[in-house]
Amino acid sequence: MPTISNKGHSMPESPIRKLVPHAEKAIKNGKHIYHLNIGQPDIKTPEIALQAVKDNDIDILAYSNSKGEESYRKKLVSYYHKNDINISIDDIIVTTGASEALYFLFSSIMDPNDEVIICEPFYANYIAFSIASGVNVVPAISKIEDNFSLPSIEAFEKLITKKTKAILICNPGNPTGYLYSKEEIQNLAVIAKTHDLFLIADEVYREFVYDGNTHYSILHEKGLDEHTIMIDSVSKRYSMCGARIGCLISKNKTIMQTVLKFAQARLSPPSYAQIACEAALDTPQSYFDDVAAEYVDRRNTLVEELQKIDNIKVAMPKGAFYCMVELPIKNSDNFAKWLLEDFDVNGETIMVAPAAGFYSTPSIGLNQIRIAYVLKKESLIKAVGILKEALKVYKD
Amino acid sequence: MPTISNKGHSMPESPIRKLVPHAEKAIKNGKHIYHLNIGQPDIKTPEIALQAVKDNDIDILAYSNSKGEESYRKKLVSYYHKNDINISIDDIIVTTGASEALYFLFSSIMDPNDEVIICEPFYANYIAFSIASGVNVVPAISKIEDNFSLPSIEAFEKLITKKTKAILICNPGNPTGYLYSKEEIQNLAVIAKTHDLFLIADEVYREFVYDGNTHYSILHEKGLDEHTIMIDSVSKRYSMCGARIGCLISKNKTIMQTVLKFAQARLSPPSYAQIACEAALDTPQSYFDDVAAEYVDRRNTLVEELQKIDNIKVAMPKGAFYCMVELPIKNSDNFAKWLLEDFDVNGETIMVAPAAGFYSTPSIGLNQIRIAYVLKKESLIKAVGILKEALKVYKD
Repeated sequence: MPTISNKGHSMPESPIRKLVPHAEKAIKNGKHIYHLNIGQPDIKTPEIALQAVKDNDIDILAYSNSKGEESYRKKLVSYYHKNDINISIDDIIVTTGASEALYFLFSSIMDPNDEVIICEPFYANYIAFSIASGVNVVPAISKIEDNFSLPSIEAFEKLITKKTKAILICNPGNPTGYLYSKEEIQNLAVIAKTHDLFLIADEVYREFVYDGNTHYSILHEKGLDEHTIMIDSVSKRYSMCGARIGCLISKNKTIMQTVLKFAQARLSPPSYAQIACEAALDTPQSYFDDVAAEYVDRRNTLVEELQKIDNIKVAMPKGAFYCMVELPIKNSDNFAKWLLEDFDVNGETIMVAPAAGFYSTPSIGLNQIRIAYVLKKESLIKAVGILKEALKVYKD
Repeated sequence: MPTISNKGHSMPESPIRKLVPHAEKAIKNGKHIYHLNIGQPDIKTPEIALQAVKDNDIDILAYSNSKGEESYRKKLVSYYHKNDINISIDDIIVTTGASEALYFLFSSIMDPNDEVIICEPFYANYIAFSIASGVNVVPAISKIEDNFSLPSIEAFEKLITKKTKAILICNPGNPTGYLYSKEEIQNLAVIAKTHDLFLIADEVYREFVYDGNTHYSILHEKGLDEHTIMIDSVSKRYSMCGARIGCLISKNKTIMQTVLKFAQARLSPPSYAQIACEAALDTPQSYFDDVAAEYVDRRNTLVEELQKIDNIKVAMPKGAFYCMVELPIKNSDNFAKWLLEDFDVNGETIMVAPAAGFYSTPSIGLNQIRIAYVLKKESLIKAVGILKEALKVYKD
């Protein structure tokens, strides 16, 4: 039989999906699992978005514009204006999820063997998009001791080579929950300008910012138009992960023309989903306030419960809905499997995301896990209780 | 400013989109345009599919399965069984359009600088997917004189090198309308086995087969399971281009595992569209019979009218809804622009697809155009009348 590609061989399997067979076995054995591993919110999609799809009057489900429906992009412009981001309709290309936006962007700005510096730990699929584009990831390591704040300018400068084309951050961060300050973004701006690099920010969690903080977007930064590309998505904002609608925003016209060629080759983003997205932009502020209040409540509960456990480190999340935790264990991949297969408290156990998959540096993060606080408070309390009991008896 | 990638520079602009500014100018000048250039059918989407989306009871628009919803894949299995294609649910991965399926496949089976032999003329975006994957296209030229039938086994064998990994056909063909015979598919099977190559068939027009012919799929061919990958889509079958749902089918488990890793990285195909697709599988046969009857009527009218024009060659389409025509001109890019900007018959003109974009071999097909018969009969008659008048006065 003919062989598959090296690229195909190198593509990682998702660190969470590797656990799925173990979870299936646990369920088969009658265990109840608290899912702390997933990024799929349990929050309802805004009614206005759901209703718009039910009320659609499509009779031919035709291709839409390769850039995304014009009416949707117009409303997106207003949304960003409200967030003090001044862009025009031509600065937006609607994509099939933030995933597609990142893939188009990587292919547009980087050639095989070029390098992208990514703040580590990072969203595991960044590695997949890099491999798909033949690009090498160079990690800039941030630490749980520092709450995952931005590494120093000097640390970045040590990583820059002739092959470096871009820096990528996720703000607020998955898996860290860290929210970069204005000063941190300005430090990145200096690096991007000094070394003539692209600066990419994945801001899909931009609405999930707590404790009275405000989100400072890379697009707020003046004089950086040729360097900045922002990636966004409706998935988390409106609990519409299944829409598969994101966007790429830049004022750099060469990038936009190049990304458009990739967008045209795949014809258009999905039509029904764009109806939902356009309507979702009219979601009342009370929806977001309620969601933020719910997440803050969950986060506080989670962190409070975690702090009752001895010998663990918790990074206090300022945004998104993830929390990184360092445990007194050696290998969280093994621990996560053991939790599913060999442990329970009254028939209940937990599923966590081992953090190794969020690091490209081998040997870092092996004792960390990511907890997504997408469960109700009572479930979080029970889940952390199970974690506590588990750590009492677990042996690496 | 930092530079974009070589890949980005090489990505072609769609040959039809290049004409759009000229069409916009024509419309601004008050001209009516008959669009013979597009692959967007004017056929209504089946009511059963549209209604299923209106009747959805989603309250959280969640990620679906990365392989596609299980219930949809189950019904797809039945659809293919009815077409004598015996596959199981594990042989299908649902993709965001056939575009994504081809991109995942190219990345899974080929490394940069590997070669794929594609029967030329071919769907223009095959070039884009190849560039995106860093793969080189080697054209196997089929000719209008032969109605675009398959090149000989010897012609293929001359093109095979150490870098060759796959052969790609489109059956029935866009832009040719050609339907490969069982014998032609069997010839391809021999080549694939002898030279240990993958054989990829884009069968998105599989239901558009006329004149009592039947479609012989590469999946009908026995003993070729490790070599064959079939690409399909709902876009044309149910006039649901905006759904962006396709699939990739293969019994080669290594390929399926590899494609799945790319599919997992982009999370899932769009959820609403999969509701439409699952329901569309219950479309009554009468819908397809009506559509086929309509296209046959249009094709016959188109070909009959074209044959009234002197000095042109028409390839008789046996499937899909495209017709390739050779004109007594030197350069159809210029001709197509001229038709839009400088010609009209009583304020009406036509927009055609210049064929150069369907060839990777320079200098072939420059005098050819592709006509999509996606307009009503009366419009086709008028449009061909305009073409006839235009050729009387056009000077290269």
